[in-house]
Parts: sequence; structure tokens; C-alpha cells
Amino acid sequence: MNAPSNPETTVAIKSPVMAKNDAIASENRRRIESLDLLGVNIMSSPGSGKTSLLECMAQRLGNDLVVIEGDVQTRRDAERIERAGCRAYQIETRGACHLDAQAVSRALDALRLAPREHKILVIENVGNLVCPSGYDLGEHVRVGLLSVPEGDDKVLKYPALFSRISVLVIAKIDLLPYLDFDPARAIAECRSLSPDIRVFQLSAKTGQGVDALADFLAERARQQHPATAP
Amino acid sequence: MNAPSNPETTVAIKSPVMAKNDAIASENRRRIESLDLLGVNIMSSPGSGKTSLLECMAQRLGNDLVVIEGDVQTRRDAERIERAGCRAYQIETRGACHLDAQAVSRALDALRLAPREHKILVIENVGNLVCPSGYDLGEHVRVGLLSVPEGDDKVLKYPALFSRISVLVIAKIDLLPYLDFDPARAIAECRSLSPDIRVFQLSAKTGQGVDALADFLAERARQQHPATAP
Repeated sequence: MNAPSNPETTVAIKSPVMAKNDAIASENRRRIESLDLLGVNIMSSPGSGKTSLLECMAQRLGNDLVVIEGDVQTRRDAERIERAGCRAYQIETRGACHLDAQAVSRALDALRLAPREHKILVIENVGNLVCPSGYDLGEHVRVGLLSVPEGDDKVLKYPALFSRISVLVIAKIDLLPYLDFDPARAIAECRSLSPDIRVFQLSAKTGQGVDALADFLAERARQQHPATAP
Repeated sequence: MNAPSNPETTVAIKSPVMAKNDAIASENRRRIESLDLLGVNIMSSPGSGKTSLLECMAQRLGNDLVVIEGDVQTRRDAERIERAGCRAYQIETRGACHLDAQAVSRALDALRLAPREHKILVIENVGNLVCPSGYDLGEHVRVGLLSVPEGDDKVLKYPALFSRISVLVIAKIDLLPYLDFDPARAIAECRSLSPDIRVFQLSAKTGQGVDALADFLAERARQQHPATAP
């Protein structure tokens, strides 16, 4: 096939809503960086184990971690994180199916963080494989979590999310003996969308693999904000 | 507390988009009834087992069942239902996070069903616990499916969905021995939103409990369209 001699130029038109979101997200990113934090946005289906993973990470990272929880309703998740020993702030979206940058900006206002008080800010998005992926919140790392019971066919069914992440977490691997889930299939399909993706397989129940993810995020935080004081 | 002497009147304003959806949904309902079908809308998280349940139901209900599959992308689910022996039509929403009445209307056009060709039309919604619940598709029965690995705390986290269903299915009960899921808690929280809800606990993997749901839907179809011919 010949290339067209006069190729038309494709211009992406951004809606005013998304342009406003992206502007606030950029401002969030500057605020997060000014606090010497690494910002992480975790997205997945409801019930795939985001909060259980964060409880597990809280035990490892302690005060290095601070969490913003996004849920349609209830404060249940923030309370779980606080019980695990970390500071947490709950956003209740009251019907909205995703977090947006404005909600995270308000959470940052409420948290009143001081520079170097923590090292990693994890934003746990609303459980939803579709809508959250379109909204930049001001994070540095986007994590997509897929749990074993959901099935190994989900990556290509929800490509908008799995093509926009840099870290894939396969969670609840303690259930692999009881379910037909082929990690190699999920990883291969995710690599077809995001060739450079980092993959972590773990179980928050047994703890297997959680250290590797915690170490990776701690190292990313160190790279981003090299120590400036002894 | 005294009632206010001049209570203000609360008027629900429906957006033009939702008013249009509801008008098409009413037309869908008339079409579904004119085909002597019972319309069922199944909603849940991604990967909670809607398609596996429908494969299992297809083996029991055979040609009595016809399925409209909703997915963001891929034809995988319709192909699974067809392999299980039932007619299926795939809607690919191409990014949209829920089905709407217009998409179901087009699927009905494409299916070209004849009266009494089938008895139960199941519409499997996009895997999403938030957005689908707001859209009437023209169904008679709304089923919410919650799978054991998702956790027993999900009902009150997603009240918009679980308050608008008449049937709660607790799926993947074969995994109860391996997970901390209390069916009584999920059912009690669902009854707090929908007191008259019917509950079915089942496993598409072992088949346990699937007959009860299939029988319930077949009986509802019979009540709605009493046999008029020998």
C-alpha cells in the first residue's frame, strides 16, 4: 500500500471538561512533587483487592505511605488503612464512577501534608475498569490491578485502562490452584498494549510478592526525590 | 421534631439524555413482551462470573434462552454463549461504560426474533458496579451479581446498583472455603436497601444452585406469558 501523498493531519480535540481536569492534574503533580512525594494511582475492578494490598503495604512502608481512598460511598476503606497503621483520607464520590483531579486537589487541601512527611502517596481509585482510566489525577505511576478470580481475559476487554498503565499487578495469586487463570496470557495481552509494562504477581493474603512491589515504589520515590538531607 | 408548616416540594428533574433513554426503554419493553419474552438485565463487576453463569444456564435452558452481551470491546462473551448452545448477540460499546436502551434496541433489530422463538432474554451488561444501574434497558427483572472473591462489603459501597435490583446472586460459592466472605452480611446489607429481594447462592463451576435461578426465571417467564397454545 502506498502512503497517501497528501496525508490529512489528525488533530485530537479535548473536551473542556477533560482540559480542565488535565490542568488541575498538572497542578496536583506539582504539589505532590513539592512535598517530595511519588504519586501512584491504583485502578481495578471492585473487589479485586486494592485495599487489601494497601493494608499489606502499610505494614511494610509504615509512615512512608499516605493514602487517598476513592469510593462511591462509605468510609470503610480509609478506616481499614488507618487500622493498618497509615494515614488515609477518604473521598466519597457520591455516585460518580471515578476520581477526578478536582477531588484529589480537595483531598490534598484536607490532608495538609508537610514536605518529606511521607514518601509515597497512593490514590486508590473507585473500583471500575472503564471510567477512571480517562482521568489524570496528577500521579507519576499508574498501576492496573487484575485479580485471579476475575479471569485472564480481562485485559483486552478493558483496553483503555490496561493500555494506560506502566505497572500491572496480578493479585490474589494464592487462588491460582482453584481457578483457571493463566498469568502468561494476561501478561502477554497487557504487553501487546503496553510493551514496557512492569509486572508484579502477589497475594495480600499470604504476603507473597508484596515486598517486590513495595521495594519498586520506594525505589521510584528515591529516584524522583534523591535525599537532600542526612 | 415538628414537620415544617410549609414544606417545599421536591421535584425530580430528569436530564434530556435519561428521558430519551427511558422512552426507548419503554419501547424495548413493549417489543420484548410482544415476543413473549421475559427481559432480564444482569449487572456486576468485571470478572464476577456473569458469562460463566449464562454458559451454565444455556446448558439448562437451551433454546428457551437468548442472550445480548454487552462489553466495552471484544466478541469473546457472545462466542462463549454460542459455544454453550444458545443464540447470542454481542454489543461492543467501544468505550462506553454501560449499556443504554438505544444499544439494546439496535441489538433487537439485529436479532430479528420471532414471537415465542425463545422465552427468556438475558442482557448481560458491561462489567461495572456504578454506571449501568442508572439505565433502564426495557427489562422486567434486574439481577445484581456479587461474587465471593469481591468481598462481602460491596453492597453498601455500591448502593445505587444494589438498591435497584430485585434479585441478588451470590456467585462463586465454591470459593467460600478459601476466602473471608460472609453471605449473611452481604444479604443483610442488600435487604437494608431492597427488603423484598430474592437471593440465590450458586457456583457456575460446580453447578450448585444454578437450577434454582434457572427455575425462578422460567417460572417468571411463564407468569408473564401464560401459554396460549397447546
